[in-house]
Amino acid sequence: MAHDAGDSPISRFFDPRGIAIVGSFREGHFGGYVIVKSLMNAGYDGAIYPVNPGYKEVHGIRVYPSLRDLSGQVDLAVIMVNARTVFQILKECADKGIRAVIIVADGFAERDERGSRLQQDIVSLAKRAAVRIIGPNTAGVVNTANGFNPCPYEAGYYRLRQGVTAISAQTGMINPQAFPYAQINFGVSKICDFGNKCDVDEVDMLDYLGDDRDTKVISMYIESLRDGRRFLEAAKRVAAKKPLLVVKAGRTEAGAKASQSHTGSLAMDAQIFDAVCLQSGILRLERFRDIFEMPKIFAAQDLPEGNRVGIVTVTGGVAVMAIDECAKHGLSLARLGGGTAAALEKLFVKLGTNPVDVGPMMAAVPNAFDLYPRILASVLADQHVDAVFTVLWATPAGNIISRYVETYEGLKARFRKPLVTWIYGPDAGAIAELGGRLERIGFPVFDTPEKCIRALGLLWRYASINRQQAQPVS
Amino acid sequence: MAHDAGDSPISRFFDPRGIAIVGSFREGHFGGYVIVKSLMNAGYDGAIYPVNPGYKEVHGIRVYPSLRDLSGQVDLAVIMVNARTVFQILKECADKGIRAVIIVADGFAERDERGSRLQQDIVSLAKRAAVRIIGPNTAGVVNTANGFNPCPYEAGYYRLRQGVTAISAQTGMINPQAFPYAQINFGVSKICDFGNKCDVDEVDMLDYLGDDRDTKVISMYIESLRDGRRFLEAAKRVAAKKPLLVVKAGRTEAGAKASQSHTGSLAMDAQIFDAVCLQSGILRLERFRDIFEMPKIFAAQDLPEGNRVGIVTVTGGVAVMAIDECAKHGLSLARLGGGTAAALEKLFVKLGTNPVDVGPMMAAVPNAFDLYPRILASVLADQHVDAVFTVLWATPAGNIISRYVETYEGLKARFRKPLVTWIYGPDAGAIAELGGRLERIGFPVFDTPEKCIRALGLLWRYASINRQQAQPVS
Repeated sequence: MAHDAGDSPISRFFDPRGIAIVGSFREGHFGGYVIVKSLMNAGYDGAIYPVNPGYKEVHGIRVYPSLRDLSGQVDLAVIMVNARTVFQILKECADKGIRAVIIVADGFAERDERGSRLQQDIVSLAKRAAVRIIGPNTAGVVNTANGFNPCPYEAGYYRLRQGVTAISAQTGMINPQAFPYAQINFGVSKICDFGNKCDVDEVDMLDYLGDDRDTKVISMYIESLRDGRRFLEAAKRVAAKKPLLVVKAGRTEAGAKASQSHTGSLAMDAQIFDAVCLQSGILRLERFRDIFEMPKIFAAQDLPEGNRVGIVTVTGGVAVMAIDECAKHGLSLARLGGGTAAALEKLFVKLGTNPVDVGPMMAAVPNAFDLYPRILASVLADQHVDAVFTVLWATPAGNIISRYVETYEGLKARFRKPLVTWIYGPDAGAIAELGGRLERIGFPVFDTPEKCIRALGLLWRYASINRQQAQPVS
Repeated sequence: MAHDAGDSPISRFFDPRGIAIVGSFREGHFGGYVIVKSLMNAGYDGAIYPVNPGYKEVHGIRVYPSLRDLSGQVDLAVIMVNARTVFQILKECADKGIRAVIIVADGFAERDERGSRLQQDIVSLAKRAAVRIIGPNTAGVVNTANGFNPCPYEAGYYRLRQGVTAISAQTGMINPQAFPYAQINFGVSKICDFGNKCDVDEVDMLDYLGDDRDTKVISMYIESLRDGRRFLEAAKRVAAKKPLLVVKAGRTEAGAKASQSHTGSLAMDAQIFDAVCLQSGILRLERFRDIFEMPKIFAAQDLPEGNRVGIVTVTGGVAVMAIDECAKHGLSLARLGGGTAAALEKLFVKLGTNPVDVGPMMAAVPNAFDLYPRILASVLADQHVDAVFTVLWATPAGNIISRYVETYEGLKARFRKPLVTWIYGPDAGAIAELGGRLERIGFPVFDTPEKCIRALGLLWRYASINRQQAQPVS
């Protein structure tokens, strides 16, 4: 489905024509019962084969006593039985010709020595049988393009907004039950939780997502890497095609040890990882939440031509913070062109200097909301400005929100320069409403001024790396 | 009102027996009309004297033609007339014996040379007449203890929850119209926007708040300081009495220049400021939003005895991030005592190691929510643990939220160790609801794991500084 590499073994995990689910179907908040429900409610139109000798039917669908009894094409199995039984089920999958398996079950390398041995046995069997595994100890995957959401936890919602960002991590904290994806106005394309990462890992995912037409931005949380060199090569290939954003946990010795404990894998040395990023063009993220928040800067914005930022703000204090932040991220404060400066000075005193502080004007003139769009447009149009950061003040009162929305709709039609927005005010509901409406028009909004600038910094870094590649310095 | 220094000149700004408001009373979203409304709705019970020859009445209150016509005690005047008229009004205030003035009007040093001269004239006059000024170019102050909220902007709400945190800044972004204070479950005591800071500044505020019984934590945003040494001395005095949290903007050259532009004051060298913090016991904050978010760690929590953090989490990934973050902030991962470890191991396999990952147990046993409070209590009770970071997973489904609330109510009665909480899950509403309920019990909740640990780091730093002072190393 919209994938160049339809024959990639990884595509079976995201676009299976049929899925077998082996586990308990007892009604509850976790397990096979929820997977079937998730799939049905998310709009998956492939065949669903629940497998368990103890049930006849779940959610109105026939339950098969064993994998052997299935007919029809089954590309993927989800296994959530006791760890000791997984080997046997995996064998049955292989016999049935199922080449992709998600092992939700836990109790493997993350648990103890015995679990580690069980995991090794599974890996050996899978290699022999040419079966690919995601997990064990995983909440699985999501593909928004085909409504494929086999989430084993009851999240309370099933459909995620389709977008261009793929998120993957060595933790279930990216799955639908762990994050309010309704908040992501720009949507997601694919989600993959590697769990213990016994087989399918970041490198497989990078290769797959690099060719995935539904994915324009890749966002990853990484604790450990099995093979740094292999990852570096894959990251290089993919980062040349689309933005690759990575946050690395387990950077300290204590953190690395904890990582080993919860997924059974060894963390990578922090310095090696920093070197990998530098060499590969990976865009480093600072915090876990960044993997959800930062990709949107790439989702709907054009790349900037340069690093000169124009600031239009209703409060001078934010400009000071923003300028400090620009310096951290390789961005500079634009100097407005003479024409722009003169035009702005005509509107109100001192308006012709960047940062453009519209606060005094907003308080002084009655038609401020007629002037504001002209000011923002002037700054965006200025050839000396490569990107704009703007600060809006919102309240539920009057028609402030709809005036801003009209302004942004007008900008959308006229400009392709990056524009990031921070909204403040006395009412959290009004801030959220305006933010949602602007994002649905296509303009990213962040919840702190610092994040706005950090996002512009990532955009500029990606643009500058790509320009270097396109036009090698002679 | 509950202030040791009732005769402090600054107390007139926060606890005036009468207030004169000089400006326009035209109905609108800004100005004297709003100030009177704000005061009435916030529950201020002092006398309100609107002053303007062009009005007879506003909000059912008599408007006086001039300051001379007032009778009764007026401790404070708020001036929001044209910048050129401010000098004359200030003179009238002095004649009337009003010793505290908030100048909301802008168009002074932040505007241009002419404005700078106007500001100098005002400062000279105020000095001669022994009148203290907050501003100009300020949105003023708030005191939640007496419902004194003379906010000149229509914020849509008037009463702020009373708490123990005082917030002050050289920007109006801390005033009610600029921040959704309803989100601050721990409330605030006082707010002060210094504006151009022509007279009353951080040092005055520190001295005042240091003695203010309603204030237990002081949170400040600083761009510039008039006299670094004077600030250092004041900060030393106050930081020995209560936590003093400061974020400094204008740290880069470009940022400092922008600061000069919007408030007309010179920013301080970043390195000097770092030295001041180190010498004075100031707790440095990283981001502007911190001044609202970080104080709550001090509001209801006891100080930790040491730096050993216990982690109880339903997801291992967060533990890795948290441990990395601990290392940054001088915190260490606690090693559980033998008794605790043994008791936890009895409940579920591998539970006796810090970080205590309850995730596998939560998925595996039906009575996880009966065990969870016991686990959290065991870790809190362990003498080898000085503070606890815990991660909760919340959904609207079932009675999960009320079970957590019950658990925390039980902990509140039994323990006085610091406990910080991060909540995740698929539903933003459920996360907010649980967070609000836990905070109203008295346990701070932060919206990222990193902030939880950063807050614990501040708490520990404050505890360790104070312990050093109490027990000098011999």
